Amino acid sequence: MAQSEIDRLIQLLSKLPGLGPRSARRATLYLISRRESLLAPLGQAMADAAANVKTCGVCGNLDTTDPCAICGDNKRDASLLCVVEDVSDLWALERSAAFGGRYHVLGGTLSALDGIGPDELNIESLISRVEAGGISEVILALNATVDGQTTAHYLSDRLLEAGVQITRLAHGVPVGGELDYLDDGTLSAALKSRRSMG
Amino acid sequence: MAQSEIDRLIQLLSKLPGLGPRSARRATLYLISRRESLLAPLGQAMADAAANVKTCGVCGNLDTTDPCAICGDNKRDASLLCVVEDVSDLWALERSAAFGGRYHVLGGTLSALDGIGPDELNIESLISRVEAGGISEVILALNATVDGQTTAHYLSDRLLEAGVQITRLAHGVPVGGELDYLDDGTLSAALKSRRSMG
Repeated sequence: MAQSEIDRLIQLLSKLPGLGPRSARRATLYLISRRESLLAPLGQAMADAAANVKTCGVCGNLDTTDPCAICGDNKRDASLLCVVEDVSDLWALERSAAFGGRYHVLGGTLSALDGIGPDELNIESLISRVEAGGISEVILALNATVDGQTTAHYLSDRLLEAGVQITRLAHGVPVGGELDYLDDGTLSAALKSRRSMG
Repeated sequence: MAQSEIDRLIQLLSKLPGLGPRSARRATLYLISRRESLLAPLGQAMADAAANVKTCGVCGNLDTTDPCAICGDNKRDASLLCVVEDVSDLWALERSAAFGGRYHVLGGTLSALDGIGPDELNIESLISRVEAGGISEVILALNATVDGQTTAHYLSDRLLEAGVQITRLAHGVPVGGELDYLDDGTLSAALKSRRSMG
């Protein structure tokens, strides 16, 4: 069959995380049945993103400008620097709208198992940024995994001499969470960091 | 933030079946990190598909040619016509490589609940095709759902006067299936249609 365009679309879609061959076929039919409203715009959006999205040379965020909109926004507090593993973590913090400083995206965590050392991550650029001055607090907003915490300890050691305050996110009960479903580590951390009411 | 290209990509991807906002964000980051190998080719494949994929005027299949490659293939048995609900069913039968005839895609099933009557489906074109002659058997390969079977009975009535043989797919135990996990209807159908061994 000369179905090259359709087969190619299925094959490429099935490479996306969360889509297998079956759901890629389903998505392809869905797209073709919405040619004007979805298929053509999505193709255009992908071409635009491929052409215009850059990695910010300062913080490692993805944006259409370099430096990115966050690094270029003078209303944000330049003395607060939040270190995250990936752009997805930066997006999550931005959605919470709880942070008004700037970011530094490491691009992963140290991992002996995967052979990822300090040179594979944006660590030197972080040290230079902090040593350049103007930053009073570095928040290590890394995942509460073994690799995330190893990386946090490593960064905390490296930043010791820069004379800035180094903090990490609080551990505790997630808002809306039920104690019965929490693991022992989270419960014991929440108990240790208990706060006086009102 | 001036993240329009990225936000637009996330927003459009989240409309695909099986992808929500979270997996659309994940897919977007995955795509941007594979700009040359996946993002740009996928954008191109979507543009190509939007420009070139047509619905076959004979059978309702999707292809880059009209009539489609199956209708245009003279090696296929023109006397066998397999009626399916959707293009995805046609693809499934083609993957099985068990059918050498031609197809007719209805575009759905009759459904009183969803207000889909005979005029909403490619039924008149099916009747004309069969009445035009040259077809000896019509296989109603519709889903074994209530709507699928209602549609099969309706088509069987409509095709009665055309003097062709009308068949349906066999019910039974799926190959590799375990009896313990099968519903009563399938088991009782498989028992009723039992075959002599060897």
